[in-house]
Amino acid sequence: MSEQREVFKGLSAAEFFYRNREIAGFSNPTRALYQTVRELVENALDATELYGILPEIKVVVTQDKNDPMKVFVDVSDNGIGVPPEEIPSVFARVFYGSKYVLRQTRGIFGLGIKMAVLYSQITTGKPIYIKSSTPESPIIAEYELMIDIKRNMPIIISERVARKRRKTHGTHVRLCLEGNWQQARRRVEEYIKRTAMITPYATLILEAPGTHLVFKRTTKVMPSPPRIGKPHPYGVDIEMLKHLFRNHGELYLKEFIVTCFDGAGETTAADFLKWSGLRNKKLKNLAPEEIATLSKKLKEYPYWRRPRPVTLSPVGEKLLKKGLKSVLRPEYVAAVSRKPLSYRGNPFIVEVALAWGGEIPAQEKPLLYRYANKIPLLYDEGADVSRRIVDTIDWSNYKVKFPAPLAVVVHVCSTKVPFKGIGKEAIADVPELEKEIENAIKDAARKLRAHITMVERVHEVIRRKVTFSKYVPEIARSLAEITNMEEEIFEEKLFNMLEREVKKTAQFIEETKITTVVKSRSR
Amino acid sequence: MSEQREVFKGLSAAEFFYRNREIAGFSNPTRALYQTVRELVENALDATELYGILPEIKVVVTQDKNDPMKVFVDVSDNGIGVPPEEIPSVFARVFYGSKYVLRQTRGIFGLGIKMAVLYSQITTGKPIYIKSSTPESPIIAEYELMIDIKRNMPIIISERVARKRRKTHGTHVRLCLEGNWQQARRRVEEYIKRTAMITPYATLILEAPGTHLVFKRTTKVMPSPPRIGKPHPYGVDIEMLKHLFRNHGELYLKEFIVTCFDGAGETTAADFLKWSGLRNKKLKNLAPEEIATLSKKLKEYPYWRRPRPVTLSPVGEKLLKKGLKSVLRPEYVAAVSRKPLSYRGNPFIVEVALAWGGEIPAQEKPLLYRYANKIPLLYDEGADVSRRIVDTIDWSNYKVKFPAPLAVVVHVCSTKVPFKGIGKEAIADVPELEKEIENAIKDAARKLRAHITMVERVHEVIRRKVTFSKYVPEIARSLAEITNMEEEIFEEKLFNMLEREVKKTAQFIEETKITTVVKSRSR
Repeated sequence: MSEQREVFKGLSAAEFFYRNREIAGFSNPTRALYQTVRELVENALDATELYGILPEIKVVVTQDKNDPMKVFVDVSDNGIGVPPEEIPSVFARVFYGSKYVLRQTRGIFGLGIKMAVLYSQITTGKPIYIKSSTPESPIIAEYELMIDIKRNMPIIISERVARKRRKTHGTHVRLCLEGNWQQARRRVEEYIKRTAMITPYATLILEAPGTHLVFKRTTKVMPSPPRIGKPHPYGVDIEMLKHLFRNHGELYLKEFIVTCFDGAGETTAADFLKWSGLRNKKLKNLAPEEIATLSKKLKEYPYWRRPRPVTLSPVGEKLLKKGLKSVLRPEYVAAVSRKPLSYRGNPFIVEVALAWGGEIPAQEKPLLYRYANKIPLLYDEGADVSRRIVDTIDWSNYKVKFPAPLAVVVHVCSTKVPFKGIGKEAIADVPELEKEIENAIKDAARKLRAHITMVERVHEVIRRKVTFSKYVPEIARSLAEITNMEEEIFEEKLFNMLEREVKKTAQFIEETKITTVVKSRSR
Repeated sequence: MSEQREVFKGLSAAEFFYRNREIAGFSNPTRALYQTVRELVENALDATELYGILPEIKVVVTQDKNDPMKVFVDVSDNGIGVPPEEIPSVFARVFYGSKYVLRQTRGIFGLGIKMAVLYSQITTGKPIYIKSSTPESPIIAEYELMIDIKRNMPIIISERVARKRRKTHGTHVRLCLEGNWQQARRRVEEYIKRTAMITPYATLILEAPGTHLVFKRTTKVMPSPPRIGKPHPYGVDIEMLKHLFRNHGELYLKEFIVTCFDGAGETTAADFLKWSGLRNKKLKNLAPEEIATLSKKLKEYPYWRRPRPVTLSPVGEKLLKKGLKSVLRPEYVAAVSRKPLSYRGNPFIVEVALAWGGEIPAQEKPLLYRYANKIPLLYDEGADVSRRIVDTIDWSNYKVKFPAPLAVVVHVCSTKVPFKGIGKEAIADVPELEKEIENAIKDAARKLRAHITMVERVHEVIRRKVTFSKYVPEIARSLAEITNMEEEIFEEKLFNMLEREVKKTAQFIEETKITTVVKSRSR
């Protein structure tokens, strides 16, 4: 078969993803449209929230008059913008970006927006349009860009700068791609709704054929933005060490550990050296075997401090409740924001909220809302660690019997969410994470149980009151006979007693807006 | 928050995958070990089968004496080898390889082996060792390589060539990585077993701590190797056209279509031009809008021939049965190899086999064996299109009532399997594919139903025989009385009649080795 002689060649990163776009979620005109909206909204949220700006994001989808499969997507934000000189590479070069640092962000791969540009380019041949300005800059830059796929470099179709008239900042992006809005609509709407749920401090607008969704912010309180952090010794590997060594050849091992890592002060670093048997050499004098040993020992030493969670930006119980209440309108919400933990040196926080009753429909299984770094995950639920955990929990331990009006929100935030794929749709089974998600759900479920128990008690009180009040006259009569006092006095006192109970109950109902009364009664 | 000033930077492809290794399946020491074995075995199979060589593949896993988490993986094959000058890039440069052509292969991303090298390098600091020779070459080349992650280029640690003494060819690869053999063992064994099932013409050996598996080939018949094909008009996009134009600027549109695409002869190409209203210009004279129109029209024209399946190498019904029988040892196998179809211009073939009874344990759901381009898929079954289809089929229509001893094998082969991720573990929901998998399963299920019906009939015959033989003497007596003939004659004839039925039944049982007699009786 000599005709089958092999031809060897290399691909640029852009060509690789052009050929394999479906692994980044661009598999067909429906999914690609959803994914495009998603990537743009996530960039817009990162560009605002990370810098303490209350997000104002508008998404506009329009269809070409002559060809409804030709779709325009416009997304504008009030974020910090992109410096003009960085715009071409940020938007039109695969594996280029500002998010390759240790910090919780929605974007992580430096890929999403480029995939959208690639997809536009190959389906409609149109460039991406970008208009952006940073807060300090006196100008607004406009670009039209395409990607040179073979070279993975931006092609500048047009560029223009203008003086700012008002003190604005932010980015506006427009793409033209082949997309099926009819089929993507439900997912896009759901995506926006779920995003609103976890970011109650953002104003989100979606204008599209047949749709006009507005989620106004319900609070101006925002989680503290994450800070850029240092690596933790438990997350180290030989390559990382070698890379860090490059700029610190003159440092001694101990100083190096204290300077370059999270989790170690002077004392711990000294103790580590003693424990590991490594000598406190200059880094440039370490032999390859010593580097390998160092890498191994750094991971094994049991006394490092936990990674600090400053790199993370959890939503917090209060905001989680707020978001859920305004979107799902449940009777009751239990929220839990757990303490930071880590897996392989990566800090993470699990947050869980259980929403119960109200407008949540009763279902055979809990409704699951999955989030990672505040991104709603809509696809591949079956492959996600949270779905499995939610399904294995014995909910009857928490007085929940299905069908029940229960929604479970699981939010994982981390400098490194272990996504199963580039499409960022499912979280892998990392044991530390799995256990923590389970604990968080159980924590919240105990709160829910307390609530359900309370509701049951209220019912009990009402039931007893009804029964008891029937007997009040008779009891009063008996008591009057025994004590030889006025029957009416007893009757009045007994009714007053009942009334107090009723009031307490009424107040409780008022406070919690119980709507599951009827349902839980039958239990 | 000016301290949070963004730092923009680019990553090499190697650095990207170094940072995100879990998306390629290298998420922990268990999974990484499994993935390493997998990638090496798949390369070995491609290096043999694609060239008509009966595969002989040996996998050896050993643990370091002092550190059982330090694992050596050796894989050797009798394949066509890699030319010495290509070895560094093929093994130590991400996005480099010989598989970026239109042809069904196991490897497609040019990534797997590099991920294994990266993982070895960052966990043990050791290079990959390669020894390879091509059939024509008089020499054997040996290399030790690492990857320069920042530059995505190979680092040659050592190289050596030697004269061949015997006329051998093939490749031997050795890696040293952090791996958990104890935990990976079951998966690796399963992987080898499932590979043996779909490649009965291969000899596969796995030697590892506590394991010695040998699957000797049970046949020397191999599927025809796939040939390299041309793109189909339905799979075209603007970028692809521009790329093809580069070498064919002087061609006229019609010639171009006939020369560069699968699916079009002279007549069809002429008809396309008429249908599309495009003028038969020289390619270099086409305006950008005309290219966009051409791309659109090529995809819309309804009369292209189907993609030719020469690029594919299905297993075929006969080999599928053979493989299944020798590994699962069922009572009965129904196999279906469907005709080629295509999605978005990519040819594909679906093959399904149902194995029933014998040593297959009865289970509540069908056991599912998923394959893509002859690769067994072990992870993420929940996210796979086949699982969903198998679960939605109403098996009672095919006389299968659970618990039942049923295994379903689904094999999808295509020049472009729509994998959900780089780890190649689940196939996405492409409508054309979905429908075809369902049809293939139903085809096979009808065969299975015929078998089960037959088994039921056999039982019916046996049951009737038993019942009938009780009455033979009585009937004989009655007939004797009526006809005034000898009772014994009738008795003998009647028993003979029964005997013939019994013989037929026995023969059927013999032929089909029915073991589900008891189970199906209760139905």
